Amino acid sequence: MSAATADSAQQVLERCDVLAGISAAADGIERSYLTPEHARTNWTVGEWMAAAGLTPWQDAAGNLRGTLAGPTQDAPILLLGSHLDTVPGAGRYDGILGTLMAIAVVGRLRERGVVLPFCLEVIGFADEEGTRFGRTLLGSCAVAGTWQESWWYLRDAHGVSLHDAFVAFGLDPARVGEASLRGRDVIGYLEAHIEQGPLLQDADRALGVVEGIMGARRFELEMVGEAGHAGGMPYGRRRDALLGASEVVSAVETLARDAGAIGTVGRLHAYPGAMNVIPGRVEFSLDLRAQTDALRDEVWGEIEEAALKAAAARHLSFEVNELHAARATEVAPSLAAAVETGIRATGDAEPLRLLSKAGHDAMAIADLCDYAMLFIRCKDGISHHRDEDVRADDVALALDAFEAAVLAVAHAHA
Amino acid sequence: MSAATADSAQQVLERCDVLAGISAAADGIERSYLTPEHARTNWTVGEWMAAAGLTPWQDAAGNLRGTLAGPTQDAPILLLGSHLDTVPGAGRYDGILGTLMAIAVVGRLRERGVVLPFCLEVIGFADEEGTRFGRTLLGSCAVAGTWQESWWYLRDAHGVSLHDAFVAFGLDPARVGEASLRGRDVIGYLEAHIEQGPLLQDADRALGVVEGIMGARRFELEMVGEAGHAGGMPYGRRRDALLGASEVVSAVETLARDAGAIGTVGRLHAYPGAMNVIPGRVEFSLDLRAQTDALRDEVWGEIEEAALKAAAARHLSFEVNELHAARATEVAPSLAAAVETGIRATGDAEPLRLLSKAGHDAMAIADLCDYAMLFIRCKDGISHHRDEDVRADDVALALDAFEAAVLAVAHAHA
Repeated sequence: MSAATADSAQQVLERCDVLAGISAAADGIERSYLTPEHARTNWTVGEWMAAAGLTPWQDAAGNLRGTLAGPTQDAPILLLGSHLDTVPGAGRYDGILGTLMAIAVVGRLRERGVVLPFCLEVIGFADEEGTRFGRTLLGSCAVAGTWQESWWYLRDAHGVSLHDAFVAFGLDPARVGEASLRGRDVIGYLEAHIEQGPLLQDADRALGVVEGIMGARRFELEMVGEAGHAGGMPYGRRRDALLGASEVVSAVETLARDAGAIGTVGRLHAYPGAMNVIPGRVEFSLDLRAQTDALRDEVWGEIEEAALKAAAARHLSFEVNELHAARATEVAPSLAAAVETGIRATGDAEPLRLLSKAGHDAMAIADLCDYAMLFIRCKDGISHHRDEDVRADDVALALDAFEAAVLAVAHAHA
Repeated sequence: MSAATADSAQQVLERCDVLAGISAAADGIERSYLTPEHARTNWTVGEWMAAAGLTPWQDAAGNLRGTLAGPTQDAPILLLGSHLDTVPGAGRYDGILGTLMAIAVVGRLRERGVVLPFCLEVIGFADEEGTRFGRTLLGSCAVAGTWQESWWYLRDAHGVSLHDAFVAFGLDPARVGEASLRGRDVIGYLEAHIEQGPLLQDADRALGVVEGIMGARRFELEMVGEAGHAGGMPYGRRRDALLGASEVVSAVETLARDAGAIGTVGRLHAYPGAMNVIPGRVEFSLDLRAQTDALRDEVWGEIEEAALKAAAARHLSFEVNELHAARATEVAPSLAAAVETGIRATGDAEPLRLLSKAGHDAMAIADLCDYAMLFIRCKDGISHHRDEDVRADDVALALDAFEAAVLAVAHAHA
């Protein structure tokens, strides 16, 4: 790789460090949708877009977008990007790295005076993680034109509705449709992202090409029993919601693992939450993924049955609220071939193919146009954690591969 | 029972309703130590004390106290009372009923011109539940003279230290010792309280006499693993703290129940607490009680072993912080006999004897003087819950019994 590429990778990593400083939490990275940190990030990254020659603008859903005009006004559009929001206690690369790489690649192409047969649009999606409102991919759904009116009533942990959060952020809920690219001539979407798993590291590869993305189903679950005195209430009369919920947590692991699926209870809170009070109610979440939607749905059926059985045995009620169901999606072969061409250009003759177990903006964009993704090795597969890490050398290879992939798409559309 | 007693019981219950309206929460009762609700409650109840002929004052630890002078300045003191603080989502009788009954009994004795051979002091203890600082019985320990200097560093959920909360409440931490009755001539302490269990109801009795109080040990427990992406991290590499904690929650039930002890995990919170992040850390509480301290400590040993085993199997670390250990205490036979005499006076020839599984201020006061307790039937044993309920008839019987118990003590000291 060239010294220029190494410099470019260094700049991308330094920018990841800058964004890591924009956080709602003093002791970690946390940037959720429609917050002051979101606004500040858009301005910071917008400046970098402008420096790369892109025209930056914030769309009607709060996504940061940067446009590079094509040869003609009606030229088709190639989308590049990833997301700028984070989970609480996040690492500094999930989403961020792919967005900043896309900007860097546009800057490099423009510096070299490369003329492309399409417009480029880089998008820094505003809500991929769904941390604030429980529903993921809000930003990319707005761009894909699949925004649902019912989402306006989603509420954050403080009871603020998505509608009111839009207004407080300075956005007009009535105009969210203007963020959509539906009906426009969009060639496709390319996204670079850290793997968030250990397979590239295990195979000793820097880069991989994504074959498809597992669909996740996400639930808010609730066990309801009855609060009571931790001393006075005998075992035979207890309706302890936490004992029921704990059985479900254990069952999620057993049932999902045995079926080859992945189930995670990430959130669990017992109420009223006092040391000497039997929990009368427990709220907890479930994130469920599998290679196929059919398998995933089958495992959910088993989990639900186990939960209802545990609830019945303890005289509890079990409530289910499904927040989100994303179908598994497959990449477009032609765009994936361009990504493979890009990886081969870095010297890896047989790029590793990977199925993404993590969700990505590309899942929502799949409703708008074709997509493909480039995965970058991350240390020990750690993600959604402060120890998330990438090698500078890998980022440099990824920049070369991503640029070559864009050029391969250009070649096919020449 | 007399019409006057029924009226008195009605007034006590109406006052319980008034206090139920003094709450930090809009949708339930919650009054914790050194809060605005605590201050307001002291003023309201102080007024009722004054109306009953007691001289009300707030002591150096925030307890509300009301004094009725004895025949001489150096007459011994008989203490009556219970607590005025509550758990979150509380009922309206736990502690409150006993405090207001003590005031009512003093008012009745004074109205009838009864001359007692001792001073009476009614105490509305300010912190029995320990909801805010995790350590129970702060109010009664101040009165018993067993306040510990280390407690100043206890912190509430917002990080406020007990020391700073004292200052904010208008109390001087340096003067907390002035609340103590140590060295004074104290005859004993009588407390009336709802049973917080179903045994009186099962036996079809309105009242019971307490034989002793189980000692509780309370722990803050922590499982620490590693946060990670809910999709990308394969099962073999996960260090999911919630799976470990859930096993402990289940083990607490099994081990405590099998041993005839009572264990409750009332608080549990998973961090970072996002739907798509494997929990890297779980904080949870344990409240453990048994008939004897030896049995309780044996069960704790088993729970700790099970937790360490679960942690080791999942590559988690398990941390223990013991907040509180109260030894089991026994009532003074002479005072319990006075309570039995009181119950017999209501027509129950053979009062039911009960072991209290719930903790009470009397446990702390036991370090200062003898104690005895009167239990009042509560509906279905429900406590620490909005459905906590008592019958007006039972409260009337309890007033007669409590008054007769005070007179029985007076008779023994005549």
